[in-house]
Amino acid sequence: MAVTEAERSAMLRAIEIASNGPRGLNPQVGAVILSADGELLAEGWHGGAGTPHAEIEALSALTPEQTHGATAVVTLEPCNHTGRTGPCALALIDAGISRVVFALDDPGAISSGGAARLRAAGVDVASGEQADAARLLMADWLVVQHLGRPHITVKWAQSLDGRAAASDGTSQWITGPAARADVHRRRADADAIIVGTGTVLADDPALTARDGDARYPTQPVPVVIGSRETPSDAALRQHPHAPLFYRTHDLTAVVDNLRERGIQRVFVEGGPTLASAFIAAGLADTVLAYIAPVLLGGDRLALTDVGVGTIVDARRLQVDEWMPLGDDMLAIAHPIVESKGH
Amino acid sequence: MAVTEAERSAMLRAIEIASNGPRGLNPQVGAVILSADGELLAEGWHGGAGTPHAEIEALSALTPEQTHGATAVVTLEPCNHTGRTGPCALALIDAGISRVVFALDDPGAISSGGAARLRAAGVDVASGEQADAARLLMADWLVVQHLGRPHITVKWAQSLDGRAAASDGTSQWITGPAARADVHRRRADADAIIVGTGTVLADDPALTARDGDARYPTQPVPVVIGSRETPSDAALRQHPHAPLFYRTHDLTAVVDNLRERGIQRVFVEGGPTLASAFIAAGLADTVLAYIAPVLLGGDRLALTDVGVGTIVDARRLQVDEWMPLGDDMLAIAHPIVESKGH
Repeated sequence: MAVTEAERSAMLRAIEIASNGPRGLNPQVGAVILSADGELLAEGWHGGAGTPHAEIEALSALTPEQTHGATAVVTLEPCNHTGRTGPCALALIDAGISRVVFALDDPGAISSGGAARLRAAGVDVASGEQADAARLLMADWLVVQHLGRPHITVKWAQSLDGRAAASDGTSQWITGPAARADVHRRRADADAIIVGTGTVLADDPALTARDGDARYPTQPVPVVIGSRETPSDAALRQHPHAPLFYRTHDLTAVVDNLRERGIQRVFVEGGPTLASAFIAAGLADTVLAYIAPVLLGGDRLALTDVGVGTIVDARRLQVDEWMPLGDDMLAIAHPIVESKGH
Repeated sequence: MAVTEAERSAMLRAIEIASNGPRGLNPQVGAVILSADGELLAEGWHGGAGTPHAEIEALSALTPEQTHGATAVVTLEPCNHTGRTGPCALALIDAGISRVVFALDDPGAISSGGAARLRAAGVDVASGEQADAARLLMADWLVVQHLGRPHITVKWAQSLDGRAAASDGTSQWITGPAARADVHRRRADADAIIVGTGTVLADDPALTARDGDARYPTQPVPVVIGSRETPSDAALRQHPHAPLFYRTHDLTAVVDNLRERGIQRVFVEGGPTLASAFIAAGLADTVLAYIAPVLLGGDRLALTDVGVGTIVDARRLQVDEWMPLGDDMLAIAHPIVESKGH
């Protein structure tokens, strides 16, 4: 059956309420229950890992008489998996729901199959309604499902000749105010901001995302990697989020742990050793190089060893945009992953 | 007296024939002699240092009867200086020329004053006719007069992170074909191309300006700086111009000597040590940085020490253009010279 006007409106509402839930390990999902004649009976959204899924939340407000023969409109394919909660597909069947409209297929290997289970139970199923809007809502979560880890942006600022500082270590400021403001805007889009202990000890960064003197409404969780101690009076200890400390150089382990914490986007801010280690490990999805029109020379390099020994192994990038920022130039790029054979 | 149509036409002709003479230590100058009623009597151009100036060349074709009362139209103010030739202003006076029209004032401290001398002798003088076209013709020579040395372009190619090669020394190719073709076009605009002996020994460059397999019609003179021997079978020994070798690290002395040879534009192609030395010495009027979207890491830096110890002494550049070339980006820049005092 074609999607009705009432179902389309319900899907837009489901997408809207989905974002009431938190970004995190689980996707943001919204659900709306409609009566057989298209009346809105209940709505619900997913409140994060360990809490009921959106469909269950919506059903819980209704009596069996109300749910029998009703339509469920959901932003994501109802799950077919028993985790901390039971499978939503089964709950919908048990409630006597006769039709399910959803936007996006569940990309999870374990949780998918809900649509097939519903159909097998005689429920009428329509998928793809407002899929683009739903995809936009869950974009970062979908990337995590695809990558198997959070999306990683590695950012650095450099002189034209690739230095992060002058020979004596001074570096404020290589780039201009427009470039620095751009960094703060992008920090605010990240769930976590990662630095090495060397950067903490050298620069004592606050690791907040600021618009002038004001803080952006969302702030990334500060993350410090390395074996050295962070001083008790370090500026990042005043961050609105409690910092996470990883006393390891195993970046994959760090990234896996961040994923388990629901982190979807991380922003690696350096210094040079850490940025280079992420690139060398292939843990860079986006590269942001802020290039200032200044020459410094010397040995304070913005990147150190990225694991390249000879030119054919160069880490080639696709530049998605060269963005002028005041006198500076931002290269927004992603690594070109060579296909292994064809 | 206002410039007549005949004089204007004569000036355009003088500018045209000026370029019959060579680029070099002296400017390219053209001269046309008109009779009192505007008829073209003779023309001449300057054939280079040690040969007669354009006015003398034109006068020499005429009898005293013809030059008496005639008008001389010249692209540059007639000189007032006895060098290897006598002052042209005096020659014009002696020939009985009654009017002189010229385009540009002589910028030389020693040779200027010709117009004043002519006027003092009762000759009618008009200046500024077709000055822009004449300035364009002599642009490089005028820059040499202004700088007191040839114009210097320092060029290098680098990875995004500022490397000229991978750790093992391999570097072909970091930049793409569009960037490499751009380098050859710009080489063809230079009078000399400078490399260090290190680059000769490492890369054995031909130092010709090529358009694909063909050579551009003009070729820069190859110049090698350094104390090491250039092998007898080095590719640059096949260059259409005999290479110049300077066994010195005194770049000012090299540049002064090139000026004395009539070199107006030099193109410094590296390697890293030589490019850095030119920048550190303040001997860079234009910087061309070809930036490839690739990361290399390691210690093969495109620039080494440019004489900067701390951030306030950074060599700041004004980028005149960010020019995309295929996947690469060319930064065309010039050093910002800080004013001393206010």
